[in-house]
Amino acid sequence: MRHIPVDPDFEAKVRGSFIRQRVMQEIGASLVEVSPGRSEVHLRIRESLTQPDGGLATGVIASVLDSACGYATLSLSPPGGAVLAVEFKVNFISPATGRLFIARAEVARTAANLSTCSADAYMIVEDKEKLVATMLSTIMTVVRPKGGS
Amino acid sequence: MRHIPVDPDFEAKVRGSFIRQRVMQEIGASLVEVSPGRSEVHLRIRESLTQPDGGLATGVIASVLDSACGYATLSLSPPGGAVLAVEFKVNFISPATGRLFIARAEVARTAANLSTCSADAYMIVEDKEKLVATMLSTIMTVVRPKGGS
Amino acid sequence: MRHIPVDPDFEAKVRGSFIRQRVMQEIGASLVEVSPGRSEVHLRIRESLTQPDGGLATGVIASVLDSACGYATLSLSPPGGAVLAVEFKVNFISPATGRLFIARAEVARTAANLSTCSADAYMIVEDKEKLVATMLSTIMTVVRPKGGS
Amino acid sequence: MRHIPVDPDFEAKVRGSFIRQRVMQEIGASLVEVSPGRSEVHLRIRESLTQPDGGLATGVIASVLDSACGYATLSLSPPGGAVLAVEFKVNFISPATGRLFIARAEVARTAANLSTCSADAYMIVEDKEKLVATMLSTIMTVVRPKGGS
Repeated sequence: MRHIPVDPDFEAKVRGSFIRQRVMQEIGASLVEVSPGRSEVHLRIRESLTQPDGGLATGVIASVLDSACGYATLSLSPPGGAVLAVEFKVNFISPATGRLFIARAEVARTAANLSTCSADAYMIVEDKEKLVATMLSTIMTVVRPKGGS
Repeated sequence: MRHIPVDPDFEAKVRGSFIRQRVMQEIGASLVEVSPGRSEVHLRIRESLTQPDGGLATGVIASVLDSACGYATLSLSPPGGAVLAVEFKVNFISPATGRLFIARAEVARTAANLSTCSADAYMIVEDKEKLVATMLSTIMTVVRPKGGS
Repeated sequence: MRHIPVDPDFEAKVRGSFIRQRVMQEIGASLVEVSPGRSEVHLRIRESLTQPDGGLATGVIASVLDSACGYATLSLSPPGGAVLAVEFKVNFISPATGRLFIARAEVARTAANLSTCSADAYMIVEDKEKLVATMLSTIMTVVRPKGGS
Repeated sequence: MRHIPVDPDFEAKVRGSFIRQRVMQEIGASLVEVSPGRSEVHLRIRESLTQPDGGLATGVIASVLDSACGYATLSLSPPGGAVLAVEFKVNFISPATGRLFIARAEVARTAANLSTCSADAYMIVEDKEKLVATMLSTIMTVVRPKGGS
């Protein structure tokens, strides 16, 4: 689907917001790409983010997918817009073992102030992407006079 | 609902597993209570876990609820059992501002190796509990020869 | 949780809307109870609603739970209000065999025009209620000049 | 993703099962296509399936998407296999008004006896497909000596 951004400075807005997301900064995630209605976030796996079985913790997977959905949606918001997760669902599909974790989000549709976004998560294993999780979420866009998420 | 644990040492198993969950340790969460099919996890809010709007990050809320569900389910597993999240959904109900975050999980039913668990999240605001999020999840129990999550 | 209805005629509004829901009428569901933020819908099982394994079809379970959530939410809407499902999730917990199916919904919280609702579904088996499914949903309230869902 | 069926007679199995699904028969849905890990179900809209606002009832949308996911998964099951929905989530994206409703499902991954499936629902409006809903579901495959779903 092709999305038309209403804010010409959407990339600066999204990148600025990502930098202010402390949790993403703390775990070392990086916003690799943002385009209208889409985002891609990468995370290099550290042992402190893993479960005893060696895979990336399910909570971390959900956090990164949630962020990716938030930024994909934020890219379509008007100037001064901010986003709030209303709800999300995530399915864990295969063990999230590997070195590099990639979350790709895409807005399915924005109507009024609610957007539906889906995101897939991959691990790079032997130079190939392995699907490890998938998210479906609902995000609300709000326009604040200043600042915002 | 009343649940009967099949592992008499369920509490030691659950507490031991919680200590090995690095992410819960890193954010400073504590397993305050565990009983058959139930768990309660507390988290004192630190600025590094908040969003720009001041609330606890949605990803952190989901992580703690997910953990609470995992441990509620683990309490019902046989000796040597471990749990894996199959999927979860979380609704964010009100802004998660406050000092103390509480997640309470309860298994709705265990059948074969799949359990359905629900969990509610509260913030303590002026000595009262404010509902901030609710989760519904599916968890798989596996029995490993040794160790496990 | 206690809910205060803003529409003193909430019961007439909800019952009137239920009667106009053709699908609920066609399958023979009845709105047994409605109170502020709550509803209970019953369905007597007919063979045409079952799956080959004899249980009530999962789609029918979801439909009735979805309706129950909609009416629980509608009971809290202003006069002229109508409700739209934004999304829902349902977990199927045990085989839905039995004669009488009961769905009970309760709104967890209403904020702005979005409500979070949860609902449980039971089958009556040997005079006891057996939990067969549980739903967590997001519902939007709209105020229309006339008519509505 | 490419899926390899383990049952060479997967199409006959899926089509036979669809015919035994009374609810799909009653509403007049037809299984238009089935291939390994995929299915497409069509439904011509009748007034008895609509909500007061004229759109296809959300419960019917969920039912058809749920069926489509079930059959996409069944196509990958071993001979004698049957499927059970563990849970699903559906987002309603735009008003489901139109004449022809199309549900397309695709299995994301099958591991052990659990599959993750996603499905999109469209309405044909002026010869174009309009996305109206999307589902993410978990399905269990069981092998029964005889019969099945």
